[in-house]
Amino acid sequence: MDVLHALIRQIEPLDSACMDRVQRRLDNLTKPAGSLAALEMIVKIFAGAQRTVQLRLPLKAVVLMAADHGVAVESVSAYPQHVTEQMIYNFVGGGAGINVLARHANAELVLVDVGVAADLAPELPIKHYKIRKGTCNMRYRPAMSREEALAAIKAGIRIADELSNKVIKMGGRGELGIGNTTASSAITSVLLNKEPALVTGTGAGIDPNTLFHKVNVIKDAIAVNRPNAQDPVEVLAKVGGLEIAALTGLVLACAAKRILVVIDGFISAAAVLAAYRLAPGIQPYLIASHLSTEPGHEAILEAIDVKPRLCLDMRLGEGTGAALGMTLIDAAIKLLNEMATFEEARVTNIER
Amino acid sequence: MDVLHALIRQIEPLDSACMDRVQRRLDNLTKPAGSLAALEMIVKIFAGAQRTVQLRLPLKAVVLMAADHGVAVESVSAYPQHVTEQMIYNFVGGGAGINVLARHANAELVLVDVGVAADLAPELPIKHYKIRKGTCNMRYRPAMSREEALAAIKAGIRIADELSNKVIKMGGRGELGIGNTTASSAITSVLLNKEPALVTGTGAGIDPNTLFHKVNVIKDAIAVNRPNAQDPVEVLAKVGGLEIAALTGLVLACAAKRILVVIDGFISAAAVLAAYRLAPGIQPYLIASHLSTEPGHEAILEAIDVKPRLCLDMRLGEGTGAALGMTLIDAAIKLLNEMATFEEARVTNIER
Repeated sequence: MDVLHALIRQIEPLDSACMDRVQRRLDNLTKPAGSLAALEMIVKIFAGAQRTVQLRLPLKAVVLMAADHGVAVESVSAYPQHVTEQMIYNFVGGGAGINVLARHANAELVLVDVGVAADLAPELPIKHYKIRKGTCNMRYRPAMSREEALAAIKAGIRIADELSNKVIKMGGRGELGIGNTTASSAITSVLLNKEPALVTGTGAGIDPNTLFHKVNVIKDAIAVNRPNAQDPVEVLAKVGGLEIAALTGLVLACAAKRILVVIDGFISAAAVLAAYRLAPGIQPYLIASHLSTEPGHEAILEAIDVKPRLCLDMRLGEGTGAALGMTLIDAAIKLLNEMATFEEARVTNIER
Repeated sequence: MDVLHALIRQIEPLDSACMDRVQRRLDNLTKPAGSLAALEMIVKIFAGAQRTVQLRLPLKAVVLMAADHGVAVESVSAYPQHVTEQMIYNFVGGGAGINVLARHANAELVLVDVGVAADLAPELPIKHYKIRKGTCNMRYRPAMSREEALAAIKAGIRIADELSNKVIKMGGRGELGIGNTTASSAITSVLLNKEPALVTGTGAGIDPNTLFHKVNVIKDAIAVNRPNAQDPVEVLAKVGGLEIAALTGLVLACAAKRILVVIDGFISAAAVLAAYRLAPGIQPYLIASHLSTEPGHEAILEAIDVKPRLCLDMRLGEGTGAALGMTLIDAAIKLLNEMATFEEARVTNIER
């Protein structure tokens, strides 16, 4: 835990002086004060993280962590486990949804294997940080050991180091793993102390009977493992997933490095929730993108007090919502940099 | 009214065969069926409007209609009337919010004077379709005559003709005019039969006392003019505005020409509501962008049954929300065209 605690101590608040200076510039632009609302807030957060008011369009990356889930044998998903591996090849080939949207957002896509249940060829252009081949079936035993969860968290921290060396200033976060909404619902249920039925949805698409079964599997997993809600690492180990723990490490390290974190869907949010419980100081570095149809997603965003900005009812994951959210952030920065002030445009401002 | 009725008769449904074919392609892409939700819906609408499944990124335009409002003398706005003229020069200079976001969305910005209360130099690079210099003060008399409202509607129709000659396939719609949320609230109150207080907000930024006064001005305007809610042209004439009537004509003509219409904020929505009451057949051609803080905006979107996709609390107008919405539409079309199918990517699909 020493690495983790040292990292958490590095997380600092946003620079409020820079935020105030940006707000003054925003108030001088030719628009009613505050009328760009959420876009103004995003620009301020970015200035506070970057410690400058000279904002440029940031280098961006979407990190897609992939791993398998032992609980998939319980038929909680619409898809069989080997789809995780197949989708890795689709990502490498550029044909998945996140490939298209990362290109649209001008963001680099970083693929990471932290636990796919297959031998992936070493020459594949992905980061090979596999901890183990998938988790155990959490319905009957812990998904992984505490040491394995910490190793996955450290893999996420290592990715953040690599991003910061490339001067990336904004990180979207996605995931792939058949069965991972089941783990995310379990994490959310434990950390928010809510009944599993209230934070469990249909994932990639299951019928009501399968949803009922999925809720029961989650109840069993929590009853068998009794994770301590005060210990987020234990929760990630017992009822989480390798890609979720890696995302938790990534968000902690991004905040410590003052890289803004764009939250994607439910799994991404569950990882953020665990990170937030380890270090509430990450909150100012978080930007929500969309609100998915998973009920646990909304519960988490409320708990960490960030508002989703896109209402597209999407439920694809992979970082697709985060990539769309990044385009809004680019738009916000362009508004700050390219709009005329009242004085420049000789437009009458009102006294306030 | 002959031109208007002839136009309305030209409005046809979307092509459902093309929509079905696009849905089949969407269902074969490497993602859970339906998981791109609103983005899939947008692509289908676009295919149905274009009558093809070979969708390319559309040429786009944001049409910004500008006019003044006689009711501005009642101090219902945070800004004095001459700001309308000043902002025209800011738009021409490229320094306003919509200039930045139209560039961001790769959309042409079309500026139109339909009723600014000033003599604008003929050499200004805008469309000079001025009907009159601002409306009358609707608190005491009709904002304009029925003939003037029809002339403004026809100006909007003419713009749509010009857009379609340029093969523009998607039109965002914005407005400028000090006092225009007052007119939009009056239109909304009459057409939706709701109390003015329920559909009136703070516009560009007024205090609670001024909001109370603004509601009373709207009540007076409706009581004095008694617009017939069954006659949208009369409503636009008596308590509307020149730019709002022009936007109404624009949306009717866009639908007739199968050009998709991206709704911006409250004023844009009020114009769409009038158009919808004249011709409900426009509904399939409407795409909402954002939800502003004006309470009337949400009421209209519910009434015409379109869902906002961006929740940014913006209240700038000018077409800024529409421009951001257009970037989502580009993303949706790219997903259709660039994602791999299950067969291409050799990913296992599930039986349905």
